[in-house]
Amino acid sequence: MLQAKYDHRGPVPQDVIEAVEADTPEPGPGQALVKVLAAPINPSDVLTLTGEYGILPPLPAVGGNEGVAEVVALGPDAQGVDVGQTVLLPVGIGTWVSHAVVDARKLVALPKEADPRQMAMMTINPPTALLMLSEFVDLQEGDWVIQNAANSGVGGYLIQLAKIRGLKTVNVVRRESAVEGVTAQGADVVLVDGPDLHKRVKEAVGDGAIKLAIDAVGGASTDHIADCLQEGGTLVNYGMMSGEPCQLTPRNLVFRNITARGFWLAKWFEQASREDQMKVFGQLTKLIATGKLQAKIAGEYDVSQIKEAVAAAAAGERNGKILVVPA
Amino acid sequence: MLQAKYDHRGPVPQDVIEAVEADTPEPGPGQALVKVLAAPINPSDVLTLTGEYGILPPLPAVGGNEGVAEVVALGPDAQGVDVGQTVLLPVGIGTWVSHAVVDARKLVALPKEADPRQMAMMTINPPTALLMLSEFVDLQEGDWVIQNAANSGVGGYLIQLAKIRGLKTVNVVRRESAVEGVTAQGADVVLVDGPDLHKRVKEAVGDGAIKLAIDAVGGASTDHIADCLQEGGTLVNYGMMSGEPCQLTPRNLVFRNITARGFWLAKWFEQASREDQMKVFGQLTKLIATGKLQAKIAGEYDVSQIKEAVAAAAAGERNGKILVVPA
Repeated sequence: MLQAKYDHRGPVPQDVIEAVEADTPEPGPGQALVKVLAAPINPSDVLTLTGEYGILPPLPAVGGNEGVAEVVALGPDAQGVDVGQTVLLPVGIGTWVSHAVVDARKLVALPKEADPRQMAMMTINPPTALLMLSEFVDLQEGDWVIQNAANSGVGGYLIQLAKIRGLKTVNVVRRESAVEGVTAQGADVVLVDGPDLHKRVKEAVGDGAIKLAIDAVGGASTDHIADCLQEGGTLVNYGMMSGEPCQLTPRNLVFRNITARGFWLAKWFEQASREDQMKVFGQLTKLIATGKLQAKIAGEYDVSQIKEAVAAAAAGERNGKILVVPA
Repeated sequence: MLQAKYDHRGPVPQDVIEAVEADTPEPGPGQALVKVLAAPINPSDVLTLTGEYGILPPLPAVGGNEGVAEVVALGPDAQGVDVGQTVLLPVGIGTWVSHAVVDARKLVALPKEADPRQMAMMTINPPTALLMLSEFVDLQEGDWVIQNAANSGVGGYLIQLAKIRGLKTVNVVRRESAVEGVTAQGADVVLVDGPDLHKRVKEAVGDGAIKLAIDAVGGASTDHIADCLQEGGTLVNYGMMSGEPCQLTPRNLVFRNITARGFWLAKWFEQASREDQMKVFGQLTKLIATGKLQAKIAGEYDVSQIKEAVAAAAAGERNGKILVVPA
């Protein structure tokens, strides 16, 4: 079997990760041997390789945090899943591999008709988008939300989830060439970032007040979307794709009473009740399995191509997610 | 009489303000003619001259927002104050003047023994410091607070008010030469800003957790004091002495769950009940009149010297407030 491993961290993520051959293990008691069908490369995975993420696993480590697999063999007394079944892998086990041995009770059986590529992206980006729309501001049908990095994985899910809730979205991208793809996902307004953003947003939304701004870019872009918020609005950051810290002028913090917060899914998992977690994932499973919520896919790579795959995921201009799809 | 007036705004505040002669008016019905004893130049006054403040008065305007005066004549039916009495001027009337005519009912009589220079600085900086310590985080005796611009007017009041409440302060300054003056005001810890601030603060406070950070500098300094907060702590900004927007890394917003807010006294006045306002000013009047709360004074200038006075107030390195004290 093949595993994408790293034994150190460094500024160029594709330099530290490597595809390594290993013997395919036998499943032990209670375990299942699975063949991975698809596993995405998320921005958090890239930041884990560079050492910039909030939690870093001990080294050496296998890359990848989520994915979907098929059960190919069961060890003694393994229960809950059958050979041939498509399953969701538990978060954080190292999913950029051709095969893995997993505690069978931690596998979640997926509906047969669901697209494994879409289901493989279910546990990280969709709940991030869903929860940022619900955990900070009480939004009602017809309310406006603004986000930057609208062309990202989370951005795309956010557009679709907002639409399902009857919310309207202003979507900010960093290049003209991204406008079309974002519009196609159901965006109400799509604009290219710039210092005059608030004027163009004002023209687009008219009297509509924006209560929530979602930032994954940082730098001056943070302040640009804060400029668009109504007085007393909330800005939620979840990433820094520009590589720069968030900038907020006292004009927004002091004179316009904007509150800045951050969202981290790992922290939400720690604190949310089992019931709340089930509710979120129940809703997302149904939407994704029925094709009502989906992400664009920009490229698929075998585990043996992990360096190209990570380089593609770390590159700025993409029109979709990068997936590891073992041959 | 002399008035410090401006008819336009511009980047160099002392260039737009000018001392102008005018006839001393007679007080009309219900009015009092007062002779100004002292009026400070606050950072917000400088930002009003440059056009960077959150509210800008219509032009032409008289500078100065707070001050103390002596009643020298009363118009017909003027009630509530006597000739010879020392009074607090209402906020926002243009206090950088030798004389003014004011609605007598808006004057607040001050205790005879109070120092008019100290009382003149009462309505803006002290409530800002007091309210930032109470409006955002529920602090208990023994809790730590960190602030930068600790050598500023608000910074000095904050040290003294924290001490009165039994809170402990970490004070950050931008130059070694400011350490001694801040220490003399009762600071528990005084440190010079830098990227390694959080390490030095950790050494100083040991196991003490810091729940509140007060920022008036902006730029990287905002993130430096955010680094010192406990997870889930709150940062409150009220100025940008560096001229740069606040910087906050996702490390603090996302991974450490820091909330960033802003404080603006003008907004608090709009929203606070009359009772809450009386409570705050009752407490501050008593503390300042009895000398328990005071600001350092770096220089006193006649209205005729308003350009030098504003230049001194706008300069970075001061060890106290600049006052207009009409000759």
